[in-house]
Amino acid sequence: MASIDINCDMGESFGNWTMGNDDAVMPYITSANIAGGYHAGDPHVMRETVEYAAEHDVGIGVHPGLPDRVGFGRRKIDATPEEVRDYVVYQLGALSAFAQRHGTTVQHVKPHGAMYSMLSESPEHARAVMEGMLEVDDDLIYLATDMNIYEVAQEIEGLRAVFEGYVDLDYRPDRSLIVEQELEDRDPELVADRFVSIATEGVVEAATGEEISVPAESICIHGDNPNAVAILEEIHDRIDEHGIELTPLSEIV
Amino acid sequence: MASIDINCDMGESFGNWTMGNDDAVMPYITSANIAGGYHAGDPHVMRETVEYAAEHDVGIGVHPGLPDRVGFGRRKIDATPEEVRDYVVYQLGALSAFAQRHGTTVQHVKPHGAMYSMLSESPEHARAVMEGMLEVDDDLIYLATDMNIYEVAQEIEGLRAVFEGYVDLDYRPDRSLIVEQELEDRDPELVADRFVSIATEGVVEAATGEEISVPAESICIHGDNPNAVAILEEIHDRIDEHGIELTPLSEIV
Amino acid sequence: MASIDINCDMGESFGNWTMGNDDAVMPYITSANIAGGYHAGDPHVMRETVEYAAEHDVGIGVHPGLPDRVGFGRRKIDATPEEVRDYVVYQLGALSAFAQRHGTTVQHVKPHGAMYSMLSESPEHARAVMEGMLEVDDDLIYLATDMNIYEVAQEIEGLRAVFEGYVDLDYRPDRSLIVEQELEDRDPELVADRFVSIATEGVVEAATGEEISVPAESICIHGDNPNAVAILEEIHDRIDEHGIELTPLSEIV
Amino acid sequence: MASIDINCDMGESFGNWTMGNDDAVMPYITSANIAGGYHAGDPHVMRETVEYAAEHDVGIGVHPGLPDRVGFGRRKIDATPEEVRDYVVYQLGALSAFAQRHGTTVQHVKPHGAMYSMLSESPEHARAVMEGMLEVDDDLIYLATDMNIYEVAQEIEGLRAVFEGYVDLDYRPDRSLIVEQELEDRDPELVADRFVSIATEGVVEAATGEEISVPAESICIHGDNPNAVAILEEIHDRIDEHGIELTPLSEIV
Repeated sequence: MASIDINCDMGESFGNWTMGNDDAVMPYITSANIAGGYHAGDPHVMRETVEYAAEHDVGIGVHPGLPDRVGFGRRKIDATPEEVRDYVVYQLGALSAFAQRHGTTVQHVKPHGAMYSMLSESPEHARAVMEGMLEVDDDLIYLATDMNIYEVAQEIEGLRAVFEGYVDLDYRPDRSLIVEQELEDRDPELVADRFVSIATEGVVEAATGEEISVPAESICIHGDNPNAVAILEEIHDRIDEHGIELTPLSEIV
Repeated sequence: MASIDINCDMGESFGNWTMGNDDAVMPYITSANIAGGYHAGDPHVMRETVEYAAEHDVGIGVHPGLPDRVGFGRRKIDATPEEVRDYVVYQLGALSAFAQRHGTTVQHVKPHGAMYSMLSESPEHARAVMEGMLEVDDDLIYLATDMNIYEVAQEIEGLRAVFEGYVDLDYRPDRSLIVEQELEDRDPELVADRFVSIATEGVVEAATGEEISVPAESICIHGDNPNAVAILEEIHDRIDEHGIELTPLSEIV
Repeated sequence: MASIDINCDMGESFGNWTMGNDDAVMPYITSANIAGGYHAGDPHVMRETVEYAAEHDVGIGVHPGLPDRVGFGRRKIDATPEEVRDYVVYQLGALSAFAQRHGTTVQHVKPHGAMYSMLSESPEHARAVMEGMLEVDDDLIYLATDMNIYEVAQEIEGLRAVFEGYVDLDYRPDRSLIVEQELEDRDPELVADRFVSIATEGVVEAATGEEISVPAESICIHGDNPNAVAILEEIHDRIDEHGIELTPLSEIV
Repeated sequence: MASIDINCDMGESFGNWTMGNDDAVMPYITSANIAGGYHAGDPHVMRETVEYAAEHDVGIGVHPGLPDRVGFGRRKIDATPEEVRDYVVYQLGALSAFAQRHGTTVQHVKPHGAMYSMLSESPEHARAVMEGMLEVDDDLIYLATDMNIYEVAQEIEGLRAVFEGYVDLDYRPDRSLIVEQELEDRDPELVADRFVSIATEGVVEAATGEEISVPAESICIHGDNPNAVAILEEIHDRIDEHGIELTPLSEIV
């Protein structure tokens, strides 16, 4: 039986500003990437998000960002590998304390935005972050957004890594993603087809019609998509139909 | 044999700005209160301070502050008990991750500046913070700066609390401290006399000449005093002379 | 002919987080209180809001807050009068530069949230802020939210002050406002009745039914009310009906 | 008679952290580059620095940085030309308000650290900043740290630009500067020789012995050099000897 995880970015509100649709989406996912307080999130949002994830038995991951709140962590900063590792360790620790208050622990690490891009482009940065997280807790899983990072992760001794796929975006034949400027409704049927295809066969049809390999054990859903809930409902229907087992990352690797 | 701990605020540099005299002071103390990144400190400073404390087998504590860096956490903020607890949990967790990288854990919590004052004035705030830290890790010790807080701490089930004394400041007869605007040299002999007096008898002479009770198991030294090192050397000489055992908080309670 | 100004808080988005309904509301108002970048706003939001206000010939005011973004400037901070004045001068200057880029200047100052409360409770703080703004530009108008502040403002030599009234909230007989936890739809007819009553007679009916004096030359509208636009349309209809002249603050005093 | 300006970075303390030696250096300089509150400085430091500069009739300039306080504005951020311009306008305006309180105005703009590097590498960024500052106040002078930027500045219609030279660092033959990791004492005689050579002849001897052209109308002195005051005293002696006129930027161009 195919097993797969659904992950989603969460806890990206900040102070009085809300973002995303955490309440509606949480019941449908198995792993939450919770903002670490740098690009988004704050201690109060973090506490509430951890509480809500714990209630729904959703695996808790940290979604650490660069210290650039006004840029939402989407602008690369010329920081050293050691500096980026320190930012990840700090945010990982902060989230862990909230997880511990609920008798649980942090399951995984998935860097956000420009930090992710920096790790993807610089194996030295990627290794620093991965070794840093292992030193904190060697049970942590690295959730890899592209193959560059996934390959670096596989070379780190003792590190469990999971590759994630996308179903609410289109792939190019080289497995890169076509990111739209504006989020818009996606056809739930099409998205759910892709979900099943990745979960059961590890393949998906690219925008050009070719079938490409996406060896993902987790699927990332954009919770801020206007019809994210409709998409997730359709996915859950198909999961039942196809006997796919939905399970948090920690039970996969 | 009398046992006592020496604690000192550490890791209060920030980015390119340095503060304190951590390198010189660390070898003489047994517990470090490390800034949590809010009133002072940052992930890089935190990492270096934890490394340095671990090298010297100094107990690691978090010194959490209010989110007011420009005011150095010295201005009260009208925050709820829950909000202050969230700030402590966040900073405690962040520091814990750095401690874990060195195979150690956080030993104690000692709130800084205006956060300390808020807890001292509002038992509701104090309780929220203490319960929060216990929920994260029930081995944590609360290092209490005044009797108001110490009494609240003693009522929290399962919480270990230690009362701290001061020897490089003068006491008033009501056990409040006379805080000078400017730090200045203190007579090492006088300071060391007080240290011995508190460590062995739990009393100290107030500025008015009266002997007052200071039932402290830890002594706080101001590392930014201009002659902090001379003071600490004198204290260490006396410790040997009087057969006092210097030991981190965690071995006292 | 009665002349009155309509002011509204604007520019309270921050980075990727949006707040308020500036685009829809701007065409209906005469003075905008633009967040100064402390409790809300950032340089990019500020630039866009100034551009939009200038397009609509709306008077530009600064809405300075305390340096507490995570608390949205709603928590009092134990800051000195001089510190609060410095925060206002800094934010006022920042906004002025954006105004100058559009060939215009800042018209007025209206402190936000807890800063406003601090000025209302402490005449010393209020005076420091008012004298500070006058030293920067003696044409600036102080927009006073309550009588405490208005009275202090009137005692400052050379300072022009305007008292503002509220029509989308209910008054108590003592002229204090009943602030609801949640913003909700307000009856546009009722709100517009109040607007006319204040504009033409300087009175309004309190929640208890009594008529109270509200000598306001500006009316504050909450742009984040769910039906703010419907309210503003109704007000504009009445303005025409009653021959009330709508005009920015600077043409009133 | 040769006229020249001496500029120095100032106001780089932050909250409780001090940096530099502003008090000792201010009496010897003619233009101060005051931190805008992003990489360093805060409203209180800014106020004090402006007061002190005004007392000494020192020209006030803004030293704007990137929004990266923990990195002291020394790490490039992937920001657009428009974003960088907004940061400059914001900080320029903030400083202007403090200048206005003292009956003076901002004289010049000199970007700090990584912002300077970004402008030097990208003419598009440089132009955005320069046009932005001109839109705010067309009397402002751009103080150019290298030839790339100076050339862009000269192409901006209506912009006055001044090129600055360095005397407490060594030049390479290509007019780039040899920046040491650690600040160290510089020979006051040698530094003063260079000052005279640049001020009277527009040339200086490079580290390799060649004479190179440095057509500077302002000399930047590092106020945090351990012997900055001795250097400045020696320079002032030579100025008298050689009949060089020391004058703020605004009187040069």
